[in-house]
Amino acid sequence: MLGNRGGNKEIKRNVSGFRQVNVEHLNGVDWLIMNHPQSRNALSCGMIADLSNALQQANDNPKVKVIVIAANGHVFSAGHDLKEASGRKNLKGSSQQETVNTMLDTCAKLMLSLNQSPKPIIACVQGAATAAGCQLVSMCDLAIASQDAGFCTPGVNIGIFCSTPLVGIGRNIASKHAMEMALTGDMFSAQDAFRFGLVNRVVPSVELKQQTQSLAQKIASKSALGIASGKPAFYLQRDLPTKDALTFASRCMMEAMLSAECEEGVDAFFEKRSANWAELS
Amino acid sequence: MLGNRGGNKEIKRNVSGFRQVNVEHLNGVDWLIMNHPQSRNALSCGMIADLSNALQQANDNPKVKVIVIAANGHVFSAGHDLKEASGRKNLKGSSQQETVNTMLDTCAKLMLSLNQSPKPIIACVQGAATAAGCQLVSMCDLAIASQDAGFCTPGVNIGIFCSTPLVGIGRNIASKHAMEMALTGDMFSAQDAFRFGLVNRVVPSVELKQQTQSLAQKIASKSALGIASGKPAFYLQRDLPTKDALTFASRCMMEAMLSAECEEGVDAFFEKRSANWAELS
Amino acid sequence: MLGNRGGNKEIKRNVSGFRQVNVEHLNGVDWLIMNHPQSRNALSCGMIADLSNALQQANDNPKVKVIVIAANGHVFSAGHDLKEASGRKNLKGSSQQETVNTMLDTCAKLMLSLNQSPKPIIACVQGAATAAGCQLVSMCDLAIASQDAGFCTPGVNIGIFCSTPLVGIGRNIASKHAMEMALTGDMFSAQDAFRFGLVNRVVPSVELKQQTQSLAQKIASKSALGIASGKPAFYLQRDLPTKDALTFASRCMMEAMLSAECEEGVDAFFEKRSANWAELS
Repeated sequence: MLGNRGGNKEIKRNVSGFRQVNVEHLNGVDWLIMNHPQSRNALSCGMIADLSNALQQANDNPKVKVIVIAANGHVFSAGHDLKEASGRKNLKGSSQQETVNTMLDTCAKLMLSLNQSPKPIIACVQGAATAAGCQLVSMCDLAIASQDAGFCTPGVNIGIFCSTPLVGIGRNIASKHAMEMALTGDMFSAQDAFRFGLVNRVVPSVELKQQTQSLAQKIASKSALGIASGKPAFYLQRDLPTKDALTFASRCMMEAMLSAECEEGVDAFFEKRSANWAELS
Repeated sequence: MLGNRGGNKEIKRNVSGFRQVNVEHLNGVDWLIMNHPQSRNALSCGMIADLSNALQQANDNPKVKVIVIAANGHVFSAGHDLKEASGRKNLKGSSQQETVNTMLDTCAKLMLSLNQSPKPIIACVQGAATAAGCQLVSMCDLAIASQDAGFCTPGVNIGIFCSTPLVGIGRNIASKHAMEMALTGDMFSAQDAFRFGLVNRVVPSVELKQQTQSLAQKIASKSALGIASGKPAFYLQRDLPTKDALTFASRCMMEAMLSAECEEGVDAFFEKRSANWAELS
Repeated sequence: MLGNRGGNKEIKRNVSGFRQVNVEHLNGVDWLIMNHPQSRNALSCGMIADLSNALQQANDNPKVKVIVIAANGHVFSAGHDLKEASGRKNLKGSSQQETVNTMLDTCAKLMLSLNQSPKPIIACVQGAATAAGCQLVSMCDLAIASQDAGFCTPGVNIGIFCSTPLVGIGRNIASKHAMEMALTGDMFSAQDAFRFGLVNRVVPSVELKQQTQSLAQKIASKSALGIASGKPAFYLQRDLPTKDALTFASRCMMEAMLSAECEEGVDAFFEKRSANWAELS
């Protein structure tokens, strides 16, 4: 997907070995690309496992500074695999209940791991992000949407309610907007999502990849250790009362300010030079 | 209010027997209409009791899929009855303190019951929504405002502060906007409320009823059981840390996905037909 | 800064004796003006102490109805003093760690005291509000920005992450916007801040002081006792589950409604006259 950029030696094509997720690397940025258009990139147990493992690999790889979650095909992700959810396609040796339980449990772990990752994660949304697919966008740190993208939580159309997607969506946007998405099941435009605060930017389709890479590279040029000291902490403090949040954040800040990384950063600032950031091991 | 629609047999005129609230039913939608223009639909103990009881009836009636809270007259609701609040009109046999206590206690219960109702509730705001009247809008799941509507929390003008309204308003809109409403007591326009995220839509006055009914009917066509599995849960999980919220929401989702309602919904989806939703008993 | 307004006898010029903060009083409004342009109004331990003490004085002075936090020079505040934070300028007799600890601890106390103050606090932002300077804006009740103002949290540029600023910012604006500020370190315009909900108004530079004073005076004309009954409570209830928040807010409301201040306010309302508000002692 990122290929044909003419001789950039840093590009690594998909060597991940995952079945439903391609991994491409460009200038410090790992692209985890859902690549199962025939299921509209459904968040099946297989896709969830691939994404989780690819994310773990990216977390563990010091060359990766920023992670992008993207998709091939016309749809970003259609959400859970309805066949798995409905007992039409149970996991091997499992009942419907066990399959649904595995699907929901591993999905919740994946979603939480996006917040817990020490690295910034950007959703790059080129098409419809539906139900758990919309939750995926909501749980990323940042999101860029193509002007053709759409966002919906249509569980009410199949006899349920997008309760788990609403956890992430409801922590990103106003309750009334979250409820409008959940109760109507309507597809909302990228512009609506921008107005709600669910995505940071809406860009022309043809610029989506390039603008996402550009934003990712800017963030990749920052201190990975610095980001790691605060990004997961942001989501933890968000859950605390304000006073406790300040105490917790002050402790994070204290450690970061006394680190060698900050010493280098401040030295560079006063010496008016670029900082030599450490690798995140 | 909804009458004169030419022969629609589903219309039931007000048979509620409430003194200050009319109840009208149209195509699965119950309209609870505050009808005490002479007090500007003040949230007196009487109005609170009528609204609470009408809501309970709507909750209990399987024919009701969606609830609208609306008002007759030029004002949506002026908030609490100042005469009751100030001891000028105590409840029979009660002191001012007992009256105020009853007013605040039953009002808080009413507000919370809006979140707890298994059915979607839409505020249809045709005029000024003041203080507890504005809280009422904030606690509904959705809100549609006429372009002439206004929103304010003017407790500071009578020596108090709209502390209880701010509970709901502050959970819908940014803190700085909530504080601007509370500290200035100013009337904010429907467009401001839209910008804040306090209302979902602003429509021309002449279209308000029709557009509200239209949105309500769209939601009424969805699975009532599905909505009931997730709507009250949304407000519960909103109060939890993210991790606990995901666990709780996954449990709600699990039960919904294993229900007969979901089986029917998914069958209908795969068979490309309309689903036959169960009644919410 | 507020001088030369032609004979207004209420103007008191700076008699505060603070080294880095000027205090000016006009018509019930105390302006706490950071006045250390040579450090770009850095939130050094000295500046934090001066602001904290000036705030305490304003809290204690019954003549002060509303507090404005403003700044002289081209920059609102550059955030913490990098020299103090990096051990280049330790507090007398202290190690770097002790200095940083004091800086963060007293800053957190200052930030929290803005929420706890019984009086409304308006940030008047004439230039860049950076890192802890941006946190300062976020923790005020209201904020007015000049169209030239800017907002950023650039800790990632010096090897840290603006974890403490994000506590306040993340409680004012959507998580995706907060994360975009923190991860890019970019300067965001006043219009962006307005769109995010971080500031209430953006005004032309030449009108900033006047419009801030005008808003402050409007609020100063309201009941100080009423505001005190609810403003700090707003931030406390925001941290509670909705049900507990309603119970707590109802208790605040009850006390306020039974107060002599409310009696006067309601009397004035029914008698169609201005209320004679009590002083906040």
